[in-house]
Amino acid sequence: MSAPAPSKHEFPFAAWTREVRQSALREIHTLLARPGLLSFALGMPAAELFPVAEYARAAQHVLRADPEALQYDLPLPRLRAHVVALMARRGVACTEGEVFITNGAQQAMSLLGQLLVSPGGTVVTEQVTYDGMLNSLRPLQPRVLTVPTDPQTGMDVDALEALLAGGERPSLVYTIPEGHNPLGATLPAASRRRLAALARDYGVPVIEDDAYGLLRYDADAPPTLRSLEPEWVLYMGSFSKIMAPGLRVGWVVAPEPVVRRLSILKQGGDLDVSNFAQRTLTAYLDGDPLDAHLAHLRAEYAARRDAMLSALEEHFPAEARWSRPSSGMFVWVEMPREVDTAVLLRRAVEEAGVAFIPGRAFCAEGGVRGVNAMRLNFSRLSAEQIHEGIARLGRVLHPPAVLASV
Amino acid sequence: MSAPAPSKHEFPFAAWTREVRQSALREIHTLLARPGLLSFALGMPAAELFPVAEYARAAQHVLRADPEALQYDLPLPRLRAHVVALMARRGVACTEGEVFITNGAQQAMSLLGQLLVSPGGTVVTEQVTYDGMLNSLRPLQPRVLTVPTDPQTGMDVDALEALLAGGERPSLVYTIPEGHNPLGATLPAASRRRLAALARDYGVPVIEDDAYGLLRYDADAPPTLRSLEPEWVLYMGSFSKIMAPGLRVGWVVAPEPVVRRLSILKQGGDLDVSNFAQRTLTAYLDGDPLDAHLAHLRAEYAARRDAMLSALEEHFPAEARWSRPSSGMFVWVEMPREVDTAVLLRRAVEEAGVAFIPGRAFCAEGGVRGVNAMRLNFSRLSAEQIHEGIARLGRVLHPPAVLASV
Repeated sequence: MSAPAPSKHEFPFAAWTREVRQSALREIHTLLARPGLLSFALGMPAAELFPVAEYARAAQHVLRADPEALQYDLPLPRLRAHVVALMARRGVACTEGEVFITNGAQQAMSLLGQLLVSPGGTVVTEQVTYDGMLNSLRPLQPRVLTVPTDPQTGMDVDALEALLAGGERPSLVYTIPEGHNPLGATLPAASRRRLAALARDYGVPVIEDDAYGLLRYDADAPPTLRSLEPEWVLYMGSFSKIMAPGLRVGWVVAPEPVVRRLSILKQGGDLDVSNFAQRTLTAYLDGDPLDAHLAHLRAEYAARRDAMLSALEEHFPAEARWSRPSSGMFVWVEMPREVDTAVLLRRAVEEAGVAFIPGRAFCAEGGVRGVNAMRLNFSRLSAEQIHEGIARLGRVLHPPAVLASV
Repeated sequence: MSAPAPSKHEFPFAAWTREVRQSALREIHTLLARPGLLSFALGMPAAELFPVAEYARAAQHVLRADPEALQYDLPLPRLRAHVVALMARRGVACTEGEVFITNGAQQAMSLLGQLLVSPGGTVVTEQVTYDGMLNSLRPLQPRVLTVPTDPQTGMDVDALEALLAGGERPSLVYTIPEGHNPLGATLPAASRRRLAALARDYGVPVIEDDAYGLLRYDADAPPTLRSLEPEWVLYMGSFSKIMAPGLRVGWVVAPEPVVRRLSILKQGGDLDVSNFAQRTLTAYLDGDPLDAHLAHLRAEYAARRDAMLSALEEHFPAEARWSRPSSGMFVWVEMPREVDTAVLLRRAVEEAGVAFIPGRAFCAEGGVRGVNAMRLNFSRLSAEQIHEGIARLGRVLHPPAVLASV
């Protein structure tokens, strides 16, 4: 049988989808397959810290108790109750009706975008921000305005106020006040109060991405935006970093009218979060393991952060600058302006067997700000591996003659 | 502390989301909570036929073998290989690169809509069709054209040809050729050949929803559309009906350029299908259980279908007409024109403890066609329960005087 002649028609993709490109992170995922690589690249939690045995027990329990665990079902009220309890740890008082369960924080972002952004509408992000958020909004083709952001103190709230005072009325403002990805920044309490007040005064929804909020290592955590402003701050949380990403379970805390609409949008998108995943996670949480588990995670990740900061001191050139995160999984390093970290990445992988993400992957507006920066993840490798990897990366950066050539 | 004064601003939902309504099916889900109800309403497989013990073993195996089962990961090639093997059962020769894994068929529909339908674009469906498909397209606010559909033989392909010959160039045509939801119809082979040729000749993508295709009870299954036309037919399958819905795993078979774009859209939407769900399903399928499991499912569901058809003969009034499905999970019943099945549903629940879905829930264009119809699911209840439920429903419909009053 001969192959049919090609059709005379071109495949009619929707116009905007012809422009979409693979996420830079996904491309790097492939590069990282190289065996023996010490990777600071992806924002992965440490798999050896996953509560695998406890989760396996919960899965067995759920499947033995009731085959309906694999049936279609409505969202599970008991899982929402657990999220309410978790939110209290973030200083947030909310009800089960204000909690909406999603397939991870990425879906929360995508559904909030659908709900708030009309096609071509305006959104505000930080100049350096999580690239997955911009990906999630692409179907809406928004106009993206950015405000400066500092590697240590996060969003420049003055700049946001100037935009609003100048007449901009964005459909949403997106920010990561705690454990900023990729910067590692923490927005100070005073800035949070001003941001919450701006949201309310101008009637602009602020999306607080708090995926890393429960991974705080230092004392004196500032209040969440949601605890300061329950009406105009829409909160996103996730079990990916505190439990395991492979579950794909996250949540939104928002006023009930928002939750009701999100629920309708999600039904059209993919019906429900896996009933089995919801029941298993609920059974796991029923055992009240979180105090011990979170304490363990925080101690481990704090030690890894400290290992990375001391290794950077020891091995990186004097010209480099980096953030000192109090939370999250990332350190942001800025090299002298002449260094292009995308070029550096290839050398680091090939010559030193070390990887990171070039800063431009996280920069709206073409990535100018991030050309000489790198995001280093400190959660996935052990303290020993971190020392070894940063030492190797440091050797690629030394002596200064080599540095000038990249 | 006094409650803050309400904000002076109205919450800025995107315009189209103000119009969205809860799915009729979801509302009925609540009504069905009544204890002791015999429900023919939802399209649920029988939970007692789920391979729960085998799935539990697979989950244990996966979690013991490697904690990375709960980590982020790329889509699993081995699961795609299993889907390729499954597709051979439907007469489809495809490659792993043509398989795309989704959170159930609902997400497949939603992503295909995003990929193909520009905002305000045109889509064609059958007059009576799966309402979840229309929900998934709502963010795009498409113009929906419909063609007639027959409870026994499905889509009127003549009517589609007339639309295309008249100059319409829809972004997609959606159809359910096998085990039609809600009709139970099977599109005859000759109509499939004509539909495949129309897709190709006019350059119009046809979405073949084959969620029920592996649940065929009678001999002489006609070929899938995808086996007739690999370029212009985009195929949707699901593990929900043959394995269990609570997993939320489905798939698309499409040309590789389509798969590559779907992958990018899904990354923005919710990153990946749960790695744990993919690995567990793969471990389950590695045991090669499907021949036996599918044979068992088909024998059970065929017996339930036969039970429903004989109960309808026995208990329903002579004026009623119904489809005789060769596949799927549904019988479509049409009552005399004066019967409003939405009114009848309340009486059925209250007087007889029996439920179904009123036909209008499945009808584009305001549901005129479905006012006197009902969808009856035969997969979830046992043959005995089906006899009992249809007998009770029949009593609500008798005597004719009562029938005339609803």
